[in-house]
Amino acid sequence: MNFFDRLERRIEATNSIVCIGLDPDQSRLPNSVLDHDLPRWAFNRQVIDATHEYAAAYKPNAAFYEDSDGWKALKETIAYAQGKNVPVIVDAKRADIGNTARQYANLLEDADAITVNPYMGRDSLQPFLSNRNSGVFILCRTSNSGGADIQEQELTDGRQVFELTADLAASWNNNDNVGLVVGATAPDELEMIRERVPDLPFLVPGVGAQGGDMKAAATYGPAHEVGLVNSTRGIIFAWEEYGEQAFPDAVASAARSLKQNLNQYR
Amino acid sequence: MNFFDRLERRIEATNSIVCIGLDPDQSRLPNSVLDHDLPRWAFNRQVIDATHEYAAAYKPNAAFYEDSDGWKALKETIAYAQGKNVPVIVDAKRADIGNTARQYANLLEDADAITVNPYMGRDSLQPFLSNRNSGVFILCRTSNSGGADIQEQELTDGRQVFELTADLAASWNNNDNVGLVVGATAPDELEMIRERVPDLPFLVPGVGAQGGDMKAAATYGPAHEVGLVNSTRGIIFAWEEYGEQAFPDAVASAARSLKQNLNQYR
Repeated sequence: MNFFDRLERRIEATNSIVCIGLDPDQSRLPNSVLDHDLPRWAFNRQVIDATHEYAAAYKPNAAFYEDSDGWKALKETIAYAQGKNVPVIVDAKRADIGNTARQYANLLEDADAITVNPYMGRDSLQPFLSNRNSGVFILCRTSNSGGADIQEQELTDGRQVFELTADLAASWNNNDNVGLVVGATAPDELEMIRERVPDLPFLVPGVGAQGGDMKAAATYGPAHEVGLVNSTRGIIFAWEEYGEQAFPDAVASAARSLKQNLNQYR
Repeated sequence: MNFFDRLERRIEATNSIVCIGLDPDQSRLPNSVLDHDLPRWAFNRQVIDATHEYAAAYKPNAAFYEDSDGWKALKETIAYAQGKNVPVIVDAKRADIGNTARQYANLLEDADAITVNPYMGRDSLQPFLSNRNSGVFILCRTSNSGGADIQEQELTDGRQVFELTADLAASWNNNDNVGLVVGATAPDELEMIRERVPDLPFLVPGVGAQGGDMKAAATYGPAHEVGLVNSTRGIIFAWEEYGEQAFPDAVASAARSLKQNLNQYR
């Protein structure tokens, strides 16, 4: 089944468009998981146990797993989330020339979808685009301040670079497997892009620790009710202000709150 | 010591601007290494033994190491190359928001330099840019055909996107640690970018299997004689047409030939 069909089913089953980032920063893990062979996996498992009923998807960022034990922790995490019927998007932001991109496409063997970077153009994404069962979220207007450096530059045809990217992504969507990453920290651009490509689902980061616009994220993120709004640190480290005894209850509570907040606007 | 100072010293010592890609595609390794615990590392070690006297740098692409054993093979490879006094550039093409990019910056703990993707702008590269001892090669005009999709679009100020990227890179070079990736398959753009940013060293891929312009690569790649021209498959799989008994001699021969070919134009 197509990724976005699977995602739609999950969104309906949970009545949630919450995506939870699984970025187990090793300097912030609770002591209770540190004795485990794979502390990142132990942490993620507890987060998944606490949050899966509110989660339309999980999004582990590959950066937090780039070492020998990390890949084991990532594989366990993906399998466990999928066992709870939650699709997994590997946030890898990859792209490379053909023979190399095919290697990166192996990252998708286990996961349901991946994020990719459009700067190198179509052929650098082809191994992902041609995988009919998996989703491909292309970076369009990112949530960080530097996102403007290239993405907001104006082209001679009147488009900004992020609009060009949105148009290219729509033209690459032959397998109904393409979505966009559009940050909630740029709500005007989010609305513009939604009007421009009405059929592409968005993955919207930036509503948690980055302070993005919750209403714009919930309103413009979904296409035909399929889309995701992501929070990472605002959920998985929600226990920090209360102390370790609040883990994982505060995590569950933060995920539930985000679901409810977003559902006000859907 | 600054990365480009170390690289300059290596280029002088070897009289070579050859960079050798270490992409141990597991479907193409010789049988002789398959029994090793870490076949990719065994292969790379033999390639390094055969080629280090011609190598100004090695460039392993992270895509070929993204699994549990892969990270071990990469670490061994980096340490071994450095033990032969050859700097190592991890070709990772990374970029991400601040806290995540800092995780990726750990990739640099072992290596001498990294390649990064500019689409997300300055703050997504800051953890790399602020590392004074390590080099940062920013993708500018890439060697693949899709490189034109975004990079060659024209901005209202008259620049193409790859020229904007070159200018941004120069403005981000406060620590004298920034270079550009500019493909040999676009020789006119290579010359244009060299004129635009005369002081930034280039890493020029695309002269081997991709068929790029050797003369343009050697002429315009270096800035003040510091720069690199990369070949990967044209060197490390040079033995394939002769059969496995030619490994690793054909690899040494291909590296020596590339050095000599490039030196005609330096």
